[in-house]
Amino acid sequence: MKNFHSNSLVSCAGFLATIKKKPFVKFPSILLSQRIMATNTKNSSDNKQLFEKSDRIAHFKQDVWSIFTPLAQQLKAANLGQGFMDFPPPDFIIEAATRAINNRNDHQYSHPKGRVNLKSALAKSYSPLFNRTLDPDLEILPTAGANEGLYAIFAAFVNPGDEVILIEPFFDQYIANITMNGGVPVFVPLRPQGDTNKIMSSKDWKLDINELRSKLTSKSKIIVFNTPHNPVGKVFSIEEMAEINKLAEEFNLIIISDEVYDRLYYEPDVHERIANLPGAWERTITVGSGGKTFGTTGWRIGWLIGPKHLIGAALSAQTRIVFCVNTPLQESLAIAFDLAEKHDYFKNMIEEYTRRREKLMKALTDIGLPYTIPQGSYFILANTAKVKVPENYPYPDVILQRPRDFKVCYWMAKEIGVVAIPPSEFYCEENAHLAENFIRLAFCKTDKTLDEAAKNLQKLKKYIEK
Amino acid sequence: MKNFHSNSLVSCAGFLATIKKKPFVKFPSILLSQRIMATNTKNSSDNKQLFEKSDRIAHFKQDVWSIFTPLAQQLKAANLGQGFMDFPPPDFIIEAATRAINNRNDHQYSHPKGRVNLKSALAKSYSPLFNRTLDPDLEILPTAGANEGLYAIFAAFVNPGDEVILIEPFFDQYIANITMNGGVPVFVPLRPQGDTNKIMSSKDWKLDINELRSKLTSKSKIIVFNTPHNPVGKVFSIEEMAEINKLAEEFNLIIISDEVYDRLYYEPDVHERIANLPGAWERTITVGSGGKTFGTTGWRIGWLIGPKHLIGAALSAQTRIVFCVNTPLQESLAIAFDLAEKHDYFKNMIEEYTRRREKLMKALTDIGLPYTIPQGSYFILANTAKVKVPENYPYPDVILQRPRDFKVCYWMAKEIGVVAIPPSEFYCEENAHLAENFIRLAFCKTDKTLDEAAKNLQKLKKYIEK
Repeated sequence: MKNFHSNSLVSCAGFLATIKKKPFVKFPSILLSQRIMATNTKNSSDNKQLFEKSDRIAHFKQDVWSIFTPLAQQLKAANLGQGFMDFPPPDFIIEAATRAINNRNDHQYSHPKGRVNLKSALAKSYSPLFNRTLDPDLEILPTAGANEGLYAIFAAFVNPGDEVILIEPFFDQYIANITMNGGVPVFVPLRPQGDTNKIMSSKDWKLDINELRSKLTSKSKIIVFNTPHNPVGKVFSIEEMAEINKLAEEFNLIIISDEVYDRLYYEPDVHERIANLPGAWERTITVGSGGKTFGTTGWRIGWLIGPKHLIGAALSAQTRIVFCVNTPLQESLAIAFDLAEKHDYFKNMIEEYTRRREKLMKALTDIGLPYTIPQGSYFILANTAKVKVPENYPYPDVILQRPRDFKVCYWMAKEIGVVAIPPSEFYCEENAHLAENFIRLAFCKTDKTLDEAAKNLQKLKKYIEK
Repeated sequence: MKNFHSNSLVSCAGFLATIKKKPFVKFPSILLSQRIMATNTKNSSDNKQLFEKSDRIAHFKQDVWSIFTPLAQQLKAANLGQGFMDFPPPDFIIEAATRAINNRNDHQYSHPKGRVNLKSALAKSYSPLFNRTLDPDLEILPTAGANEGLYAIFAAFVNPGDEVILIEPFFDQYIANITMNGGVPVFVPLRPQGDTNKIMSSKDWKLDINELRSKLTSKSKIIVFNTPHNPVGKVFSIEEMAEINKLAEEFNLIIISDEVYDRLYYEPDVHERIANLPGAWERTITVGSGGKTFGTTGWRIGWLIGPKHLIGAALSAQTRIVFCVNTPLQESLAIAFDLAEKHDYFKNMIEEYTRRREKLMKALTDIGLPYTIPQGSYFILANTAKVKVPENYPYPDVILQRPRDFKVCYWMAKEIGVVAIPPSEFYCEENAHLAENFIRLAFCKTDKTLDEAAKNLQKLKKYIEK
């Protein structure tokens, strides 16, 4: 019997092998008939084995987060792993939520379309950024986190066999969000131009537009695009987005633009939106995140912005998945947007994160570990090719079967006292080798954590080849 | 072009017609090839038409809530329609939430398994009710509302073509939750024993166990069971549940026991749990609702309780649908359970709802409209067979195409000033006629609303035949 209680997130590596065996596009007649025989077995002494999981989740295996987040807690290592803030939200956010909670009449169902106050706040904040007057009723949809918003879009548009283009590395949840809805992910990697053994800019990670074109077929339905990019930190230029948009137009793709880090970019770069390119609006849903924006990843409120024909379909799906999004925290976010302006919050946030970014870059420079300077988001990819991890280190099974970056991250957590995330989790099996020399470090962390990480990273120095 | 922005909830009536045309179990090759041709059409002047919705949502049509809730607001009628409270939660709930919000470190991602504090509180509150020591880690899962919990279960267990048994009338979201995951709903109605033109008890609405058996096949995978029942108000007896459990055992079905009204039952009846029957635990997931329990339907926190092999699979699915449930309101609920005991909340709640129930029953008795006395939940089914609605009343199209109960409810909202819900929405097309003489009235409302409804219902008297 399989491990029923792992967090059971799909792994990319395991996924491709599985999809070859059990294509989602076809009716799994053999599997079903096995189950039917099973269900006709009466009075089994072990009914548990008969309650088979659906094919859409049966292949999920332990995710990277449930390996490394508990490891960080257990070891008390400096946790630069999962991208949550280890500091509280600003006081004005707590104030906003306290006010909202005490509106005693705001504790019942929201309309599935979302709270009017939040939609108005989003329209006010985002209309200038989209160079248009957004219709809060029809063009904006609060979601139960950006993640559920993505799931709802795939549920709304993907039929079995439809292909969804993912740019590697990608947010690992995309895969399951697509395959649970019968879609087939198709992968195109960003390729670093230049020597990743030296410090380089995330702008030098490039999408080969001809490689992307070669993956498009008549089955291609959606392309998922992410800027500022997790984990590379790339902020795509207008010119790069124009090339993607042109292909999307040619193949009539829906563009999902995952812009959850849209308020986090560093000079001289500026976040631009693919939806603002000529002709792109009608085919683009932009995904935003209250958690990333206000340091409240636990509130589980995101939003979708796009034309009404796309937003309306996502709403149809979402209404049946979660019915509506929680009311008090939608109202809290509405107040938070209002207060943010008064506190010059977005400008201050960039300044703070710029400082955190500098601190982590300095720590890496100090020990001679090359890395990619992120133009945006709060991650740094460091190159560990020159790190000589001791041979025959005792890895647990869950690590042993994975690529080199899992081993480096596990060893670093145990011996160096710094937790990072292995980015091969964000590649398909075929391309995982592109990531095996990298680790992802998050800097949405306190000075204390970053300083501790810097101190512990000194221990890595003696393992780095000159 | 279809109405992209209706709430687009599936209707049972429309659904069966659709599923006959487009079976979910087969790959919709004709539809897909149409789409492929469409996507190869470049530079269309109207791209919107090409971004087709998936087959799983394309047939959704306007739901009953988005017809009658806005109508109630527009007409300022006494709204006994949708089952939300029109009064604030108790002070101690606001206090619990205020305390949780001000725990500044509780605003980041929860573990997908849920908050330890909430799971402990649930284990403490529910272990005595399940006659076992519940394992908070493996046997309890907070969900993003009971609705998302249901969706996650279907995602976790239903393969295309698997059959899910629904007892009519049923909560309308079940259908889409099942079909979006490729399942096929199979319907068995509760049948009132005796004369519904007289006042009767909800205990006289009976499930014909032989009728249920006749619907079970080797494809049956899950039965959804609901007690206390919405909208009938029935609280199933141990004997009735034992019959269902016996069939579930024989056909090795998973039982989803929707018990979101488990704290609302009226003397002399007591809520019993099917999971407590001999042998039932291993096959049963019980669904609970923080919103129904604490009068906070907008918090969107529910929970699943069951054996680890079922809960673990639901967690696998849920982790990819919403990743995790919102943190501050999980923490609020944990505190709320603790305070509830001190305030004798559950006992007081039953007393308050008993009073509300009496008030609405008296209003119906006064005008001579027969009804079913609910043993539990907060709904009353009234029989309108004797109500003579004026002929040729001007109904909008959305009402005209629906069964008689939609017309009665629309006319009552406009002319009598009371909003009710037409229960044929909770039946499949074939069985919708069983509901056409009923209306559902909710009594989770203030005295003011109930008194206004009683007053307005007097206007109905002259339309009721003796």
